[in-house]
Amino acid sequence: MKVDLNCDMGEGFGRYALGQDEAIMPLITSASIACGYHAGDPVVMQKTVALAVKHRVSIGAHPGYPDLQGFGRRNMDLSPSEVEAMVLYQIGALAGMAKAAGAELAHVKPHGALYNQAAKDRALAEAIARAVARFSKSLILVGLAGSMMIKAGVESGLRTANEGFPDRAYNPDGTLMSRRLPGAVLESPGEAAANAARLAKEGILFGAQWVRVDTLCIHGDNTNALAMAKAVHEALITTGVQVGSLRHELS
Amino acid sequence: MKVDLNCDMGEGFGRYALGQDEAIMPLITSASIACGYHAGDPVVMQKTVALAVKHRVSIGAHPGYPDLQGFGRRNMDLSPSEVEAMVLYQIGALAGMAKAAGAELAHVKPHGALYNQAAKDRALAEAIARAVARFSKSLILVGLAGSMMIKAGVESGLRTANEGFPDRAYNPDGTLMSRRLPGAVLESPGEAAANAARLAKEGILFGAQWVRVDTLCIHGDNTNALAMAKAVHEALITTGVQVGSLRHELS
Amino acid sequence: MKVDLNCDMGEGFGRYALGQDEAIMPLITSASIACGYHAGDPVVMQKTVALAVKHRVSIGAHPGYPDLQGFGRRNMDLSPSEVEAMVLYQIGALAGMAKAAGAELAHVKPHGALYNQAAKDRALAEAIARAVARFSKSLILVGLAGSMMIKAGVESGLRTANEGFPDRAYNPDGTLMSRRLPGAVLESPGEAAANAARLAKEGILFGAQWVRVDTLCIHGDNTNALAMAKAVHEALITTGVQVGSLRHELS
Amino acid sequence: MKVDLNCDMGEGFGRYALGQDEAIMPLITSASIACGYHAGDPVVMQKTVALAVKHRVSIGAHPGYPDLQGFGRRNMDLSPSEVEAMVLYQIGALAGMAKAAGAELAHVKPHGALYNQAAKDRALAEAIARAVARFSKSLILVGLAGSMMIKAGVESGLRTANEGFPDRAYNPDGTLMSRRLPGAVLESPGEAAANAARLAKEGILFGAQWVRVDTLCIHGDNTNALAMAKAVHEALITTGVQVGSLRHELS
Repeated sequence: MKVDLNCDMGEGFGRYALGQDEAIMPLITSASIACGYHAGDPVVMQKTVALAVKHRVSIGAHPGYPDLQGFGRRNMDLSPSEVEAMVLYQIGALAGMAKAAGAELAHVKPHGALYNQAAKDRALAEAIARAVARFSKSLILVGLAGSMMIKAGVESGLRTANEGFPDRAYNPDGTLMSRRLPGAVLESPGEAAANAARLAKEGILFGAQWVRVDTLCIHGDNTNALAMAKAVHEALITTGVQVGSLRHELS
Repeated sequence: MKVDLNCDMGEGFGRYALGQDEAIMPLITSASIACGYHAGDPVVMQKTVALAVKHRVSIGAHPGYPDLQGFGRRNMDLSPSEVEAMVLYQIGALAGMAKAAGAELAHVKPHGALYNQAAKDRALAEAIARAVARFSKSLILVGLAGSMMIKAGVESGLRTANEGFPDRAYNPDGTLMSRRLPGAVLESPGEAAANAARLAKEGILFGAQWVRVDTLCIHGDNTNALAMAKAVHEALITTGVQVGSLRHELS
Repeated sequence: MKVDLNCDMGEGFGRYALGQDEAIMPLITSASIACGYHAGDPVVMQKTVALAVKHRVSIGAHPGYPDLQGFGRRNMDLSPSEVEAMVLYQIGALAGMAKAAGAELAHVKPHGALYNQAAKDRALAEAIARAVARFSKSLILVGLAGSMMIKAGVESGLRTANEGFPDRAYNPDGTLMSRRLPGAVLESPGEAAANAARLAKEGILFGAQWVRVDTLCIHGDNTNALAMAKAVHEALITTGVQVGSLRHELS
Repeated sequence: MKVDLNCDMGEGFGRYALGQDEAIMPLITSASIACGYHAGDPVVMQKTVALAVKHRVSIGAHPGYPDLQGFGRRNMDLSPSEVEAMVLYQIGALAGMAKAAGAELAHVKPHGALYNQAAKDRALAEAIARAVARFSKSLILVGLAGSMMIKAGVESGLRTANEGFPDRAYNPDGTLMSRRLPGAVLESPGEAAANAARLAKEGILFGAQWVRVDTLCIHGDNTNALAMAKAVHEALITTGVQVGSLRHELS
C-alpha cells in the first residue's frame, strides 16, 4: 500500500511569510507550489522549488484565481477559456522555475475556490484538464477524490490522483462534510493521523464504489500544520503504508 | 545582408486593447510578447502566440516590471535576485503558452524601464542574462545595440541580438538621442524607413567600432505603427536587405 | 418630467484609454467615475473629476470588484463585510479627489457584476447600502430600477435612484431581457433614444406597479456611445423631458 | 516637554497578518495606517481604524507606492503628478474609513521608499505636500526630521511634524546612519529607549541648528516591536517627557 503526502507550499508573498515550508518539506513527498495568482511571487517560488529539490520532493503547480486579497478562496465566475489560459500561464511560470533548477513538474493541483468549483462544475474542470494536457500529457492532475475534476482529467487522457483530507470528516456518501458543521474539521493531529491511515488503506466509499486515495493533503497554512504532518507521516509508516511521490506511485 | 524585424505584441489587458497586432504580425519576423507584468494577461498572451504561429513569426518573451499602471515604463529599484526571479517567471509563463501551441521561444527582450536600466546597469543586466541562460542557453537575448545588456548576455554564453530603432535618432557616439530633444523621435514613416535601411546595412558606430544591427524594433503602441511597419519592411526589401527571424539570422 | 442622464466615466487605466469621456461629458448630468478597482487609477480619476467639474456634471463613485483583468464584470463571492469595506474604500478614494477639486460626491452606483449581483442578493445589497450610508446619508444610491439594491437603499434611509437602460430591451415583467437573447441589446441610437423617452415618461411596469425611472444610463465603453448619448439627449429634450442631475431631481 | 509616539499599523493584507497592532495600539498616540497600496486592504483598514478609535489614538494615512510585492520599499520613478494623485487617492480612501467610524484623519506620513525619496527629492516632496494640502490644510504632514519633506510641507502652508527614529543611530550631521553600517540599527529595546528620550528632549542637531523631534516612530513589523514600544513609552514617561498625539502637541 502506497500513498503520496502533499502540502501547499510557497504561499508567502513579498514581505508576507506564511506556512512552515522548511519544517514540513522533509515530511512530504509532493509540494504543490503557489504560482503568483492567489499567493506566491517569483522570489518565493524560486526559493520553494529549491527547497523541494533539496529534499527530493516532487514539484507540482498549484494554480489559483487572480485574487491575492482573497487568497484564491473566493469563488469567481471566469469563462472556461479564461480559466484554461490562466492555468496554463501559472503552470508555465512554475515549470520555468523548475527547469532552471534542473527539475520537472510532476503534477498540477488547483487551489482553493478553483479546486472546489472544479470538483463540481464540468466546464471548469474540463478547462483545467485541457490546460494541463496541452502543457504536457505526462503531468498528473490532482483533484478531490471521486470528483468532476478527476473525471475531466481521465477524459483528457491525463493520469489523475484522487486526493483525501486527513483533517476533514467525510459524509457517508463520500463527500466532504461542510466546514460549517461541528466536527467537520479535525483539529487534533492524532485524529487526523488516524483518518489519514484509514483513507490510505481503505479509500473512500462513493455509493457502492470504493475510490482509492492517491494523495493526502496537509494544509500548510494551519498553525498546527507541522504537528499534523508529523502525526500523519508517522501514522502511515506505522500502519504499513508506504509514503512515496505520485510519480512513482501512479506509474 | 539580413535583419530581423521585431515588434512588441500582446500589450492589451483584459478589457483594454492596445496596438494593431493582427495587421502588423504579417510584416514582422519576431514578436516580443508581453508576459502579464507590465501588460498582457493569459488570454491575450494565448491569442497573441496563436497569431504569431499562424504567421510563422518567431516568438519571444517580453518581460517587464510588475507595474501595469505605469506600463513597465517607470524605473523601479529591484534587487538583482528579484529581477532574476521575475524574468524567469515571465519567460516560463510565455514558454508554457508557446509549448501548448506547439511552438518554442526564440528570444527574450526586456521591456521599457527594465530594458533601459539594463542597458547601463551591469548587475541588472547580469541578472536578466542569468535568468535567460538558466531557462535555456538556446534563447537569444535582445538588447540595445552595444549596451551592457548585450555584454552581459555574451558573458553568460548566450547568443545576443543588437537592436536598433528606426524611429529614433542616434547621437554621433552611437547612443540614442534623448526623447526630450527635438528631432529625437522620427514621426514620419519615410524617415524611419530610411533610418531602418541605414541601420541594417551599416550598423551603428560606437567610437571606433561598428556594431552590426541584428534586429529592428517597430513600436507597436504608436498610432502610426502599421504605417511604420509597412514603410520599414518595404525599404529593407527595396534596398536589398533580407528580412528574417533571429533564429535563422544568428545561426 | 425630469430625468438624470448618467454615464460610466474614467474607465481607463495607466497606458490604456477607454471611452470618449471628453465628448460625452457635456451631454450628461451625472458621471459615475471608476474608483481604481475594476478600472481607473488615481491619475485618471483626478482628470475625470476635473472634467466633470468643468462641465458642471454631478460626480458619483462607481465602485466595482477588485478585478481589473475582468473589468469588474465577473461575479465574485465576497462576504458582505468584505463588500462593505471595499465599497467604503472606493467611495472615500473618489470623495478625496472630489474634495481636492472643490466638489462633492452626489451618488454611488455599483459597477458591473457587483451591480448585477446586488440587484438580486439581499445581503450584498445591504452591505453596499451600509457602506454608502456610513459614508454619508446625503449620498444617492443608484441601482437597477425596482431591484433589491433600491430596496436596501431605502431601508438604509438613503435616497435612491431607479436606473433604466435605453439600449436594453425589457421583459414584460419589468426585468431586463437577457443579453443572450436576440434583440436584447439595442444597437441603433434611434431605437435607444425612443426607449429612453419611453422609460423617462412612463417608467417601468413591475407586475401591477409602475416604477419611475430617475436616471438613464449611457454605456460609456461602447463604440457608439457618443452617438447614443447624443440621440438619447436629443430625444429627451424633444419629447419634453427635462434632463437634470439627480441631486436636483430627487430633492 | 511633549512628544508623539507613532507606529505603522494595518500592514496586513488579506490572508496575511503582519505586526502586533492590538498589543501596540494602547502604547502609542498616533497610528499611521497603510492605505492599500504597499500594504493593507479595505477590511484591514477598517479594522485598524476601529482599533485606533477604541484606544483614542490619532489616525493618519500612510500612503505608499503601488508595490505590494516590494512592501513599498523599492524606489519607483513616478512623475510628481502621479505621486500627487496617488497620495490623494490613499488619503481619501482612509479618510472615508475614518469618517464612517466617526473619526477624522490627523496626519499623513508617507511610507518606505516614498518617505525616503521625498526626504531628498524636492519635486516629490512638493507633490506629496500638494496632495495633503489639497485634501485638507488641517492635516499634519509627518516626515524625516529636518528633511526636504518637512520643508515642502511648511512651504505648502501645512503643519509639519519632524520624525525621529529611536531604533536608529544618527550621524553627527543629523542624518540617519546607513542601515548597511554596523550599529546603524539598535536592536535592544533599552538602547532604543535611551535614544528615544534623548531625541525627545534634545532634538537633532543639523549643522548648527537644533531641530525639535515632534514624533517618534516605532517600527511595527519588527519582531520586537512590542518590547520596543513598551521600553520607549516607559523611558519617555520616566524622563519626564509627556506622550501625546500630534494634534494636541502641535496646536
